[in-house]
Amino acid sequence: MSLIVQKYGGTSVGSLELIQRVAARVAAVRERGDDIVVVVSAMGDATDRLLDLARGICPEPAPRELDALLATGEQVSVALLAMALEARGVKARSFTGAQVRIVTSPVHTRARIHRIETDRLRAALREGIVPVVAGFQGVDADGNITTIGRGGSDTTAVALAVALGADECQILTDVDGVYTTDPRMVPEARRLDRLSFEEMLELAGQGSRVLHLRCVEFAAKYNVPLRVASSFATGPGTLICKEERRVEAPVVSGIAFNRDEAQITVTNLPNEPLAIHRLLEPVSAASIEIDMIALTGNREGLTDLSFTVHRDDYPKALRLVRAAAAVFEGSTVSGDERVAKLAVVGVGMRSHAGVATRLFEALAAEGAAVRLVSTSEIKISVLIPEEQLEACVKRLHAAFGLDRPPESVALPIP
Amino acid sequence: MSLIVQKYGGTSVGSLELIQRVAARVAAVRERGDDIVVVVSAMGDATDRLLDLARGICPEPAPRELDALLATGEQVSVALLAMALEARGVKARSFTGAQVRIVTSPVHTRARIHRIETDRLRAALREGIVPVVAGFQGVDADGNITTIGRGGSDTTAVALAVALGADECQILTDVDGVYTTDPRMVPEARRLDRLSFEEMLELAGQGSRVLHLRCVEFAAKYNVPLRVASSFATGPGTLICKEERRVEAPVVSGIAFNRDEAQITVTNLPNEPLAIHRLLEPVSAASIEIDMIALTGNREGLTDLSFTVHRDDYPKALRLVRAAAAVFEGSTVSGDERVAKLAVVGVGMRSHAGVATRLFEALAAEGAAVRLVSTSEIKISVLIPEEQLEACVKRLHAAFGLDRPPESVALPIP
Repeated sequence: MSLIVQKYGGTSVGSLELIQRVAARVAAVRERGDDIVVVVSAMGDATDRLLDLARGICPEPAPRELDALLATGEQVSVALLAMALEARGVKARSFTGAQVRIVTSPVHTRARIHRIETDRLRAALREGIVPVVAGFQGVDADGNITTIGRGGSDTTAVALAVALGADECQILTDVDGVYTTDPRMVPEARRLDRLSFEEMLELAGQGSRVLHLRCVEFAAKYNVPLRVASSFATGPGTLICKEERRVEAPVVSGIAFNRDEAQITVTNLPNEPLAIHRLLEPVSAASIEIDMIALTGNREGLTDLSFTVHRDDYPKALRLVRAAAAVFEGSTVSGDERVAKLAVVGVGMRSHAGVATRLFEALAAEGAAVRLVSTSEIKISVLIPEEQLEACVKRLHAAFGLDRPPESVALPIP
Repeated sequence: MSLIVQKYGGTSVGSLELIQRVAARVAAVRERGDDIVVVVSAMGDATDRLLDLARGICPEPAPRELDALLATGEQVSVALLAMALEARGVKARSFTGAQVRIVTSPVHTRARIHRIETDRLRAALREGIVPVVAGFQGVDADGNITTIGRGGSDTTAVALAVALGADECQILTDVDGVYTTDPRMVPEARRLDRLSFEEMLELAGQGSRVLHLRCVEFAAKYNVPLRVASSFATGPGTLICKEERRVEAPVVSGIAFNRDEAQITVTNLPNEPLAIHRLLEPVSAASIEIDMIALTGNREGLTDLSFTVHRDDYPKALRLVRAAAAVFEGSTVSGDERVAKLAVVGVGMRSHAGVATRLFEALAAEGAAVRLVSTSEIKISVLIPEEQLEACVKRLHAAFGLDRPPESVALPIP
């Protein structure tokens, strides 16, 4: 007998009919004899409708009251799902964040979970009752209702799985797993059966929108196996777990990309840390996030610095860097806002040489103008002109054999 | 400096614009220097919409989950009103029933309030914060969300006023007070400035739908002055309080009526309690409520019994009485479902003789066929044919001088 935490997102509980389908699915887990705790988000666009109400009162509503308002969205879904389960003869009980006591920091609209009291949930499980827990919300030490930010229901689910020592945390959503790359761009993209936490973090960080970074970090930290699967179909999805569990790790697991990049390059800077600091400091002070960064060349004490920012921040960042560079005689500042980032990710890189060679070979065959390179242990990222992105992703997907299934066995969803 | 509890019903907070108007009104109380606790219902038809969702899941939703679902209606209103107050610079904080700790019996959909913890509310008041409390809901000793039945927000307001020792509990609604009789029937009907709890109970019990019986009983028991006034206009409304507070009590305060009556009469019954019991017992066993009841005549050990039931219950009650009367030889059973009840109410009756005389004089002048009479200390009720109701109410309204203002001073709303 396993203990499973299942999380259903807003699109999976977007109508009464869908809630009935979720109930049927939860009932099937019970029939199999497993224990289950269900976490749900607000129905469909309920949160947006509540936000509209709040903004109808004032442009910047009091955060404490905004949290109290938004928390009703999940309270509606948990009550309806518990009703649907009871109507099918499955014992169930809804819980708000306050009722569980998901205790968070006393910060509104983006609280952090401090601890979860599991007494009431464990008592329900012992009685054969399915606890249906409101995602996204908690309560601070003074009993004020808090929310943990958008996408927070995933984090609630992982945190509950950790607190209860669950065997698996399943995120049921509108995609059927994590893919080798975006299937909308590459039709040959394959669903991955398994992936390590680190790979998932690199993929998520690069803009694969399946799971929130924070929830993957949480699962990795406490080593809770995480499964992403479809709430509409019955596939095994993708299991994200510790690296050791993999039978055979492929060299490259997936290709991530991000179009919203812009590059700024400064040439002929004094090659000393203080100069770099003086150049980048105003950008950071303006809360502009710097992503890739590379120093190139070192001739006669001079160097070139190149980095990327989000395309929306580009005009401001360029202005700030121009002003900061003015003090360095002979320096030049240039920029390009039509660039894209592409990254190959895989824990297999650690033990396999030649990934970079194969990467550049493929990029060269595509005639890609590589503008910036940065590497981590399990990832190589390159910046290329945006118009070359699609062709490069497709060529790399084939070059690393991602369109062929690996020789591992797909495990049935527990 | 007074402490006021104000309650706004669903129609008073039915839109964002109306919520802003309520906020302005609450702000005015604060500007005057008074402390205030606000109780609100769910917006407009929010409760009905939530009920529709629940019934979409199953015809008889689990009561615990229904309460969790319905409680979101008031949580939305309190959050929005607190936001609107904060946006105007009035410090405010929303409270659910669970956050206040309005502790109720562990019964769903019709719980009773056991106690109210006032620590958090008092702390807020000390800090100059307006607590905005969700009506209609509470929490049982185990932390389950409960609701106290339809119209329960009035009860929440009175209970809070009692618990906090408030100077007055104001029910702001869509009527501007309690009238001498229904103004839709008698255009000369006047708003009453003051009324005793007992008079209000008699009027409410007779179908004046301004306040729920339960909330008036509660206010009377703990002697909290209750004011009914319009949430859309600024009039003094009607103050309902202990009798002693009245400067000069009129003989009759108001006339109540109820069209939904039906009369059943049994003649030639043995004049003994057991016979009456055997006749009425099957009616009560069928959960049919018996309202007026009168025994008339006593000739040779025989008596006539007449009573009224709600018109909807009439066919069933008549059938049951016919069956029960069959054992009493010589008895006859007859009925009439086109009757209406009319009652004159007033604490002044206690000290003024001749009310009954004046009543029957007026009814006789109207040619009314009085079918049944019953009396209490402050009320005389008569049953008459329904088609004579309107004319009788109008004549009595004039006969008791209810269309002329009494010589008392209207007090400004505190």
